[in-house]
Amino acid sequence: MSTPQSARALSINNINPHVKAAKYAVRGELAVRSEEYRAKLAKGEGKDLPFDTVIAANIGNPQQLDQKPITFFRQVASLLENPLLLEHEDVLINSLGYKSDVVERARWLLKEVKSVGAYSQSQGVPGIRESVAKFIERRDGYPASPKDLYLSNGASSGVNTLLHIICQKPSTGILVPIPQYPLYTATLAVLDAVCVPYYLEEARAWGTDLEAIRNSYSKAVSEGTDVKAIVIINPGNPTGASLPAEDIKAVLKFAAEKKLVVIADEVYQTNVFIGEFISFKKALRDLQKESPGEFDNLELASLHSVSKGMVGECGHRGGYFELVGFDPEVAAEIYKFISIQLCPPVLGQCFVELMTHPPVEGEPSYELYKSEFDGIFNGLKERAYALFDAFKQMEGVECQTPAGSMYLFPTITIPPKAVEQAKKEGRQPDEFYCFRMLDATGVCVVAGSGFGQKEGTLHFRTTFLAPGTEWTGRIVKFHQDFMEEFRG
Amino acid sequence: MSTPQSARALSINNINPHVKAAKYAVRGELAVRSEEYRAKLAKGEGKDLPFDTVIAANIGNPQQLDQKPITFFRQVASLLENPLLLEHEDVLINSLGYKSDVVERARWLLKEVKSVGAYSQSQGVPGIRESVAKFIERRDGYPASPKDLYLSNGASSGVNTLLHIICQKPSTGILVPIPQYPLYTATLAVLDAVCVPYYLEEARAWGTDLEAIRNSYSKAVSEGTDVKAIVIINPGNPTGASLPAEDIKAVLKFAAEKKLVVIADEVYQTNVFIGEFISFKKALRDLQKESPGEFDNLELASLHSVSKGMVGECGHRGGYFELVGFDPEVAAEIYKFISIQLCPPVLGQCFVELMTHPPVEGEPSYELYKSEFDGIFNGLKERAYALFDAFKQMEGVECQTPAGSMYLFPTITIPPKAVEQAKKEGRQPDEFYCFRMLDATGVCVVAGSGFGQKEGTLHFRTTFLAPGTEWTGRIVKFHQDFMEEFRG
Repeated sequence: MSTPQSARALSINNINPHVKAAKYAVRGELAVRSEEYRAKLAKGEGKDLPFDTVIAANIGNPQQLDQKPITFFRQVASLLENPLLLEHEDVLINSLGYKSDVVERARWLLKEVKSVGAYSQSQGVPGIRESVAKFIERRDGYPASPKDLYLSNGASSGVNTLLHIICQKPSTGILVPIPQYPLYTATLAVLDAVCVPYYLEEARAWGTDLEAIRNSYSKAVSEGTDVKAIVIINPGNPTGASLPAEDIKAVLKFAAEKKLVVIADEVYQTNVFIGEFISFKKALRDLQKESPGEFDNLELASLHSVSKGMVGECGHRGGYFELVGFDPEVAAEIYKFISIQLCPPVLGQCFVELMTHPPVEGEPSYELYKSEFDGIFNGLKERAYALFDAFKQMEGVECQTPAGSMYLFPTITIPPKAVEQAKKEGRQPDEFYCFRMLDATGVCVVAGSGFGQKEGTLHFRTTFLAPGTEWTGRIVKFHQDFMEEFRG
Repeated sequence: MSTPQSARALSINNINPHVKAAKYAVRGELAVRSEEYRAKLAKGEGKDLPFDTVIAANIGNPQQLDQKPITFFRQVASLLENPLLLEHEDVLINSLGYKSDVVERARWLLKEVKSVGAYSQSQGVPGIRESVAKFIERRDGYPASPKDLYLSNGASSGVNTLLHIICQKPSTGILVPIPQYPLYTATLAVLDAVCVPYYLEEARAWGTDLEAIRNSYSKAVSEGTDVKAIVIINPGNPTGASLPAEDIKAVLKFAAEKKLVVIADEVYQTNVFIGEFISFKKALRDLQKESPGEFDNLELASLHSVSKGMVGECGHRGGYFELVGFDPEVAAEIYKFISIQLCPPVLGQCFVELMTHPPVEGEPSYELYKSEFDGIFNGLKERAYALFDAFKQMEGVECQTPAGSMYLFPTITIPPKAVEQAKKEGRQPDEFYCFRMLDATGVCVVAGSGFGQKEGTLHFRTTFLAPGTEWTGRIVKFHQDFMEEFRG
């Protein structure tokens, strides 16, 4: 006998409608189906499937694919987990290949955290925040202070914190780039605030278009939205863009003009293939130097993470954000909010320390670190361009030159018959395309509609983390068959 | 020149009012001041302070104090962090004291997670959820399924998830025990939902009082609150209670009668000194067996964590919750909600696996594990009773016999002059008392008002984690002086 739903306290009709409204395609239905395929193949079943491996190109999860962890980081982490090993320094060094700087760093970190099993301060371990501050100073050439740094549970929890503070009421609006990483729209949905979309300029390497931002802002304001902040993701997700200095400065100027908090999601800051990464913090300090007084009140929150880059330690959930120009009373509310969840994972915090304070030239672990770091960087770049080249072979597919992050986000043009078929199946056309790709190839990508895109355009996002070129071949072949099937 | 506040986008007057409304005393002003004292002493300053160490008795943070991690857990963790060590099994075993079961477990976990640096499924690593299910089956004698288990970032994020789903609108109410761990009231404040307080019965070892629950419920309903769930913390925080079976069954029957979701916070399930721990899941299954059909629709979510007990690995932020009787459509929304934050820390998930699947008799690591586990358990029990005895010496202090968790929550009666002085300083009387205690002794406890208490009563919560008895002596001495100072 089945239970009538009304007999329960909770049903889909009476839970939090704002949670229901949230969408998060990166781990949505496509990802779930790909996991089913993976499980089937792992059990030795799935002889009926037209592929023998599943390629998770839907998510930037480097170590699930080919990327090896940086040895220095993991050696230190092993000592943090089992400090008793430090009583056998000779064995570590003579038999296990640990260098003296590994041992020193572990001792220092243990002094700072006492135990990676203990709660830290909610804002993060003070000594680790000092390392991060020094890193920011080296990166930008401007001072940074540990008191303005908040370690977080990956960058995602930092975004969650910032949006929680800013979203005052249902009419509070946040400017979000489209396409965007859906963490932003999902969190705004949960918070019952307004996402004010502004479109990125695909034709200009997915740069920010100030005119588009200005128009979105004005339209929102005219509709009664109280626009309080602007989000920028640089390098771009899902776009793979790397913003030039002029785009960054234009956004900062606009934010100052309209009194908007700037939320700079900079988790891909080391994944840059074209030009160099310029942080919003540096650009803001440059502007403040150029025009004294004019930008003093601008509030900037910039986020970073151990999940991406050559670190790729997303499973450790480490990240931080830096606040610039925030009112101390507001910062105190941020502190209180994060303290409710006690503290970010302490080992994740240690990875933030290691990322921001890696071995330097002359130190025993430097050479290996450098060769691992460069190897990962070059591998990613090569794969990005190989994929980009594959897209060139595909009819109706156009892609911007890979510039940064871990993604390509090509436009696809598919035959009207395919669009009709998608409609019949109750799916967005690009989602339909991605399901077909998954079913035919085992390659899981995310439909552009999961990130937002200009009306009438279709895209998909793929990482270029998976090793080899065999899987790109599968995509090319699938696309050809797909176009054949639906050609008019 | 100071910046006028209105020049910024955000001020204390225009941020999220629900975040502002949240209170979280466990890491509030007292804790902040104690950290300042600690920092001062660490720098060799603080000659003016009447103490030379700070005792953080405000928070259940075992490894910040005396508790050593369980060796088996940390040995496995060291191999998960640096799998290259597994290439030197002989060194591990012959020179570093690792047993073969440590190596086997690490290999198995690595197979399950691929890398602790990779994202896992949002619900948690499937193999780890299987271990947890087996643990629940052994504990309760009833089946459990990995598909109903959700690994979380400590139990706190599990609570956050559940309340996010349940709180539909500002009139949604959740029955919360008073005194309570302030995670509940703080999260409800952020969610703009109603906390429906029900008072625990101090005179009956802080048991649940069904009459009190019934009255709170009726009052809330008559005021237009849509009461959807009841929270129980067992063993109790801050009360230190350990609920008997009849209290648990009474709550379950009431929840079934009123169609309430039961949220059972059972993170202290191994910290039980009196009687035995009975899980809400087991009690529910017992009831379902006794009265077939009657409890089939009851929804239960029970939470557990690696932070407490003899594990004490709070810095690793591992936990899980089990759903019983939830509508699959609601469970799907829970999945989507947690997927927005990607996954809990993977190493924290591994600690959940280790906690729920420790070495058993006959395995190489068992003896050491058992002696460490028992040593921690007995040490905590001894300290609880030593503290309890110290309270007996204190005028106007009364405390229930220690029964479970990591806390004692004595009542204090302080002279009217002290209450007046507190009023003058704009503080709650017990908060005033706690600040005085901190300033005089360096011992940081939390005022009862931070957890809620019956009108006209005063309490404080202290952990009994700190080693030795010297610090309890400080409290006794302080209390004597305090009572002298304010005596009429």
